[in-house]
Amino acid sequence: MMMQTKLAMKAVPVATAARANTNITNGVDVNKLRETVAAVKQNADLASFKFRIQNRWIDCGENRSHVLPFSAGGKVFAHRVGFTLTADEPEMLLGADTGANPVEHLLHALASCVTTSTVYHAAARGIKIERIESTLEGDLDLRGFLDLDPNVRKGYQNIRMSLNIKAPEATEEQLRELATLGQRFSPVHDTLSHGVRVSITADRVE
Amino acid sequence: MMMQTKLAMKAVPVATAARANTNITNGVDVNKLRETVAAVKQNADLASFKFRIQNRWIDCGENRSHVLPFSAGGKVFAHRVGFTLTADEPEMLLGADTGANPVEHLLHALASCVTTSTVYHAAARGIKIERIESTLEGDLDLRGFLDLDPNVRKGYQNIRMSLNIKAPEATEEQLRELATLGQRFSPVHDTLSHGVRVSITADRVE
Repeated sequence: MMMQTKLAMKAVPVATAARANTNITNGVDVNKLRETVAAVKQNADLASFKFRIQNRWIDCGENRSHVLPFSAGGKVFAHRVGFTLTADEPEMLLGADTGANPVEHLLHALASCVTTSTVYHAAARGIKIERIESTLEGDLDLRGFLDLDPNVRKGYQNIRMSLNIKAPEATEEQLRELATLGQRFSPVHDTLSHGVRVSITADRVE
Repeated sequence: MMMQTKLAMKAVPVATAARANTNITNGVDVNKLRETVAAVKQNADLASFKFRIQNRWIDCGENRSHVLPFSAGGKVFAHRVGFTLTADEPEMLLGADTGANPVEHLLHALASCVTTSTVYHAAARGIKIERIESTLEGDLDLRGFLDLDPNVRKGYQNIRMSLNIKAPEATEEQLRELATLGQRFSPVHDTLSHGVRVSITADRVE
């Protein structure tokens, strides 16, 4: 994957996209995807990623995260530009409503991951997708957060995602497979469905 | 909470913030927080929230979510402005790197929720916070997503969050409590730690 990375990091002139040996499906460079798979098969360490962010509280319900460089195979890679993500609470929840709130960001993480997983795995199977749209809804009982009832969980009770996929060239069998790819392969779907160990440490600063 | 909402939705002249009966701690209007708690105690239905987003695929790893109005107690509330959240993949993962990727958004959801939960619950306890910063790191083995090893999970294997809290007026006991508030009350922390039922339906569109 490190060789793969060097390739991917190079600026590629637009004209080369028309080279006979490129194979772009759903915007995904399938040849590069296969090279990545081959590289990881040879050296599993290359598959070891660490993603990182840094968050700073502003006031009340407002805070911002900066996305930090990530690691892959022990090497550090910076994003092309810096990304800042803002969270806040709506006025009803006593915030200034300057950004989506944390549980809305969670729905975005899920939607984007299921969509991308569908797109990439469809590309690997040669299934061309024209459009994907989804709506998501999560149920949350605020009595949990407000500590009013120990039997009410603090987090989401259910999340529902409804996908619409347009893939007119796909066979019936491919369409059935398309519908399963997101939940089979999405890292965020897996993390949410099965849970993950979250360890938190807090230090006092002067 | 509906009465509470009407109050919160009104434009409040800055001068009124200095009224003797306001009680702002960490930017949180503690009197309004208590009114909300009292309203929910009287009518649990008011605590029933539904949060919603809509996502649209752009190309390859790029897609965008629009935050939709949320429901509380069966009534619908729009955000002050529309929020659009962008996701993409870095070039190494074959994307155009126009935004944080889904698993980085997941870390932001967690960071923002733990921070806000700490700030609000500290306010309710009269504990003044001057600064909160945190860094988060998640471990992900790409062999899961690439379907190369059935024993490797697709999602995060661990998430670590390190908080720095500055609260010079807090007692030792309050500082110890501060360190626990995020993981005790954060909806996203609870959702990630214990998992949630995610149901996905996919439909073909023409």
